[in-house]
Amino acid sequence: MSETVRIALADIDRVARAALVRAGCDEANAIATSDVMVRAERDGCASHGLFRLPGYLASLRSGKANGRAAPVARAHAPGVVRVEGDNALAPLAMQVARTAVAPLARAQGIAAVAIVDVLHFSALWADIEGLVADGLGAFCMTAYLPSVAPAGAKTPFFGTNPFAFGFPGEAFIFDFATAATARGEIQIAARDGRPAPAGAGVDTDGRPTRDPHAILAGAQSPFGGHKGSALALMIELMAGVLIGQPTSAEAAREEKALGVCDGGPPRGGVLMIAFDPDRFGDAAGWRAHAGAFFAELRALPGVRLPGDRRRLERARIAREGAAVPRALWDEARRAAGH
Amino acid sequence: MSETVRIALADIDRVARAALVRAGCDEANAIATSDVMVRAERDGCASHGLFRLPGYLASLRSGKANGRAAPVARAHAPGVVRVEGDNALAPLAMQVARTAVAPLARAQGIAAVAIVDVLHFSALWADIEGLVADGLGAFCMTAYLPSVAPAGAKTPFFGTNPFAFGFPGEAFIFDFATAATARGEIQIAARDGRPAPAGAGVDTDGRPTRDPHAILAGAQSPFGGHKGSALALMIELMAGVLIGQPTSAEAAREEKALGVCDGGPPRGGVLMIAFDPDRFGDAAGWRAHAGAFFAELRALPGVRLPGDRRRLERARIAREGAAVPRALWDEARRAAGH
Repeated sequence: MSETVRIALADIDRVARAALVRAGCDEANAIATSDVMVRAERDGCASHGLFRLPGYLASLRSGKANGRAAPVARAHAPGVVRVEGDNALAPLAMQVARTAVAPLARAQGIAAVAIVDVLHFSALWADIEGLVADGLGAFCMTAYLPSVAPAGAKTPFFGTNPFAFGFPGEAFIFDFATAATARGEIQIAARDGRPAPAGAGVDTDGRPTRDPHAILAGAQSPFGGHKGSALALMIELMAGVLIGQPTSAEAAREEKALGVCDGGPPRGGVLMIAFDPDRFGDAAGWRAHAGAFFAELRALPGVRLPGDRRRLERARIAREGAAVPRALWDEARRAAGH
Repeated sequence: MSETVRIALADIDRVARAALVRAGCDEANAIATSDVMVRAERDGCASHGLFRLPGYLASLRSGKANGRAAPVARAHAPGVVRVEGDNALAPLAMQVARTAVAPLARAQGIAAVAIVDVLHFSALWADIEGLVADGLGAFCMTAYLPSVAPAGAKTPFFGTNPFAFGFPGEAFIFDFATAATARGEIQIAARDGRPAPAGAGVDTDGRPTRDPHAILAGAQSPFGGHKGSALALMIELMAGVLIGQPTSAEAAREEKALGVCDGGPPRGGVLMIAFDPDRFGDAAGWRAHAGAFFAELRALPGVRLPGDRRRLERARIAREGAAVPRALWDEARRAAGH
């Protein structure tokens, strides 16, 4: 394990913003992008916290990301809006998307927003948390770069393709990769000479292995066999094909053609669906119903619910600061010129 | 294995309809309900074929299902319609739902339909196949009776809660239970004296087992650990809480209170979302894009896509008839008075 230091969230925000501005972001983009990293650190999700800064900076420096993009929302159908990202880092475009889709969901009952030409590198739960806090439900999904072998196959084709869902009232949110294991976890196992979790992936011959180097050369596996594979496929269609954006395989070819394989996120789309529970026929009852449902669920011995760990971490980390690897903190401060 | 007989699909349809009518269905309900069983048999999905007839009949005989229900669609918001099922077997209500939601999805881009007070016992892919054939995409989900232990817990709380997705163009459809294994498969293993698939569930002490009887007494497991468990939870919220319908646990209590634990499906809701890919900003491109995506995916050695087995079976079974256990066929014919 690398040495970590405790850093106050305000300091992480200050350093991340400065580094983003130095790499070419305007204020609006720097604030939005730093915010998603700080919120991940606040909830103990190091893998989507400051850990992502070097990738963001690389994609700004290579010219793949437009640090001065001003994403614009345009209505496309009564229930569909499209946010043209202009190659922005995703966080600012996702703000624009939330602002556009929320009134539409209230007016229509359900609405979708296609966020296109953005570079998405953050946690999906952070993209829907604001909608859920405002009383809306949401689905969100995005493709990535090819790293997961479809069920039966042995070469990477699907991205790690995360899927998030949120429901208001109890503010229930989950967010998971359709890959069995986060790619970062396999990379860290390789670095530390530890085996990868069972089921994480296959070698170049398609044989299951726990050798992290063999998996990184071969392919990650989807979670849950053919069912997780089907969800990953769904996400390629919804966040790629449906909205005229690259699938994971296409994103990788585009990066190669443009010479921007910089380790940062690829250009692509995000698909978000928002709905208003007050418009589905049980406006008077759904909040109490949700409360009773979660009370009964939480009473089951041993049960673990998504998001609970994040909520527990939140108060402690806000007080104590986040644990950041010293090397990463030093790198961030250098990038910020601090 | 029990002895099977080859039965022409037309004969299955004739016998199933007659049995449903004798148990109290009017023509419209009998035709719609037989149709979903015949389509399952046509595609080699025995677990959703004639295998379901005894459950349908039991729920009609107990008075839980209303065989003469006339489900009605009512607009609820510009993008939301509600189908009041009047305790119908689901198939007729799902027909009404498709007819109501399709024009709404075309007009709005995306629309939802809440099907309430129905008894759902069929394959979800059959519920969305018609929409996909008509050029729409769809999500569909429904809760059931408590049979799956949430991640970490060991008592049944979630239903087997299936989730289906369809995308037009290539007419791609998947449909899976969020349980590791379909309950019908475990029931068939119990009937035939075979072990259940590994990972299918736990005994009453929470220990993993492959004894199908022990799993039916204990709890099924969700597929893919905490991720599948999160999806099952999402479905309880969407097909239950959101639309004022019983969650799986509530459905079981209702059955007990009403004295209708008849082995048939419980009263509950189905939530379907339909969308029109022509309204998402790439009307000119998405069909060709989908074609290229699937061509590349299918070219991967070893790859297996959802629905492929069904499509392969279809032509053969239409020609040869479906393999039906003799005891089930005899039972169906007796119920039909044939």
